[in-house]
Amino acid sequence: MSQGIFSVLTGDGKGKTTSALGHMVRALGHGKKVCVIQFIKGGWPTGEEKFITGLDTNIELHIKGRGFTWKSDDLSKDIAIAKEAWELAKTIIAKNEHDLIILDELTYLIHYGMVDETEILDTISARAKNVHIIVTGRYASENMIEVADLVTEMKVIKHPYQKGIKAQAGFDF
Amino acid sequence: MSQGIFSVLTGDGKGKTTSALGHMVRALGHGKKVCVIQFIKGGWPTGEEKFITGLDTNIELHIKGRGFTWKSDDLSKDIAIAKEAWELAKTIIAKNEHDLIILDELTYLIHYGMVDETEILDTISARAKNVHIIVTGRYASENMIEVADLVTEMKVIKHPYQKGIKAQAGFDF
Repeated sequence: MSQGIFSVLTGDGKGKTTSALGHMVRALGHGKKVCVIQFIKGGWPTGEEKFITGLDTNIELHIKGRGFTWKSDDLSKDIAIAKEAWELAKTIIAKNEHDLIILDELTYLIHYGMVDETEILDTISARAKNVHIIVTGRYASENMIEVADLVTEMKVIKHPYQKGIKAQAGFDF
Repeated sequence: MSQGIFSVLTGDGKGKTTSALGHMVRALGHGKKVCVIQFIKGGWPTGEEKFITGLDTNIELHIKGRGFTWKSDDLSKDIAIAKEAWELAKTIIAKNEHDLIILDELTYLIHYGMVDETEILDTISARAKNVHIIVTGRYASENMIEVADLVTEMKVIKHPYQKGIKAQAGFDF
C-alpha cells in the first residue's frame, strides 16, 4: 500500500493554492478521489468552483470561508465559521473516502488561534495511512513543520506589483 | 485590456509544475485558452496527458520531452529535440491564440546551453501584450529573472526522502 504524504505549502510567495490545485488535477488524472476544503475566502471564485467540481466525479469541494472578512472587530463569527469548517474537515478525514485531502489555508486557523493546533495535528496524524494531505497557507507553525513529511516554502523573488501591474482575473485569482 | 504576466517558478522545491497546472485549471475556469508545452520528460505521464486534454476544449498540450534522457554521452539528439520544441513554442507564441502559455521546464534549455537565451527572452518579451507566460524549472537565469514580472522560488524546507518515504504515483508524478 502506498504511504500518504502530509505536505505543507507555506511562505509569502505565489503558488501555494495553485500548486494544491495542480496536485488535485494530477491525482484525478490517476483516478484518485480528492476532497478540497477551503477555509478562507479568496482562493476560488464562484465560476471556478463550478468548473472544478465539473472536472470529475471524484472531486468533492467545500468552500467554507465565504464571508470570512477579518475586518470585523468582533471575531466571534469568524471563529465560529472556522470551527465549523474544521469540524467538517475532521469528519471527512475520519470517513476515509478520499486519496487526497486538500486543506486550503488551514494554517491561518492555527496562526490566529481559532482552532487548537494539537487537535489539528493529531487529527492529521491519525488519518488512514494511505491518505495524502496537503495544507496550504502562510505562517505554518513549527509544530506543523515538525509533523509534516514535506514542507515547501514559496518565496517571493520578484513581484509584479513592484512594476505597478495589478492582479489579473484568471491568473492571480 | 488586461496585461499579460511573465511568471517564473523556480527553485529546488516541489510545486513548480503543479503550480503551473493549477494556473491552467484556474485559467480554464475563467474560460481562457491555455497552451502547455512540456520540454523535459517526467512532468506528466501518459494517463494524465489524456485526462488534462480531456478537461476542456480550451487546452492544447504538447509533450515534447519524451525520450530526453540526459544519460547519453552524445547530447546532439537531446539538443535537436530541445531546439525543435523551442521552435514549436515560438510558433505558438507568435500565433497569439492563447491567453496563457505554460513553458514547463524551459529553464533547462537555457541552463544547458541548448537554445540561445537572448532568443528565448526576446520571443517572450515580444508576445502579444495580454498573454500570460509561465516558465518553470530550476536554475532560472539572472537575465530571465530580470525580464520576468513575477518570480517565485520553491524552496525545500523538509523532504520526505529524509524520512525514507519514496515518491508516490498520483502525488509526486
